[in-house]
Amino acid sequence: MYEDLLNHIEKYIRLNDAERQLLVSVMRYEKVPKKGFLLKSGKVCSSRFFVLSGCLRQYIIKENEVEQIIQFGLPGWWICDHHSFENNQPSEYCVQATEVSEVAILDAAIQEDLFSKIPSLERYFRLIFQRAYDASLTRIGLEYCMSGEERYHQFAKNFPDFVQRVPQYMLASFLGLTPEFISIIRAKKGK
Amino acid sequence: MYEDLLNHIEKYIRLNDAERQLLVSVMRYEKVPKKGFLLKSGKVCSSRFFVLSGCLRQYIIKENEVEQIIQFGLPGWWICDHHSFENNQPSEYCVQATEVSEVAILDAAIQEDLFSKIPSLERYFRLIFQRAYDASLTRIGLEYCMSGEERYHQFAKNFPDFVQRVPQYMLASFLGLTPEFISIIRAKKGK
Repeated sequence: MYEDLLNHIEKYIRLNDAERQLLVSVMRYEKVPKKGFLLKSGKVCSSRFFVLSGCLRQYIIKENEVEQIIQFGLPGWWICDHHSFENNQPSEYCVQATEVSEVAILDAAIQEDLFSKIPSLERYFRLIFQRAYDASLTRIGLEYCMSGEERYHQFAKNFPDFVQRVPQYMLASFLGLTPEFISIIRAKKGK
Repeated sequence: MYEDLLNHIEKYIRLNDAERQLLVSVMRYEKVPKKGFLLKSGKVCSSRFFVLSGCLRQYIIKENEVEQIIQFGLPGWWICDHHSFENNQPSEYCVQATEVSEVAILDAAIQEDLFSKIPSLERYFRLIFQRAYDASLTRIGLEYCMSGEERYHQFAKNFPDFVQRVPQYMLASFLGLTPEFISIIRAKKGK
């Protein structure tokens, strides 16, 4: 059930059999229906979610009630509001499945005990967050350097399947564009 | 010399005397003149820089030769191109001091040995990168949710000293605005 998670971890660190067993024994599995929520704003984010299948989106609700997608979680990606998770404070984010999804859940309540038993997990998460941080800085750079149209094409080139997979309005929200703008770009390309 | 660094680390993890001494013995100190470079694009980023005093900026050069600032490094902040650092690949970024600055330098060549001798540093960097990643997601959210003017005011409110400290064109680059636009906002506020 957690094979993809173990493989992901073992790309970064080595686990022995006892550690693998311990990890599997403390993770929780959840199958989330399409549009099902793993986190709602105002609640504490008490878990980290590793996407085994499907797709999650993390978003905030703006003053005008419009949803702003901050990131998507595809298989092999961790989603969490770290600030809320580490400080036990209400989150501003929602985490929702955009399609039927399966997640492996690491609860805040057991994290410290798990890390003390498998200290190399600190290294795993250090490397994961370092990469994610790096990617978000690259994204910030691209945001300013590229036009909306260039951003769309860059994204579509990097994630061709994904562009087909999520509704256009979600992609628009993620890229800071309007759905209408994406329609125009797609129509242009189709010509 | 490294007191601020040790204090920063000990906000997150405990170090014993031997660990403190080891850390201090392997860090390098550098005083960087205003406009001095710690990294130039095309070179491998072979160090992590902890800002002891002054201010660094990390930027890319866009196709039109315009500099896009990705982030500033104020005292207590680590600056590094992690991708270049971990993979020994040429960086796309430049890191330059915006004023006379002092940095504590952790070289890639000694990192693994240091982490094996002080494993809790993995935890320290895990927490640091988790926070930085979180902050960059918040920044991405603000970018889309706020107008340029709102972004400027939010930034000026959060970092009032800083707005006075760096040249207007750098602040504009960081916020994805033009220097002229910032002039207009400031003039409005002055009225």
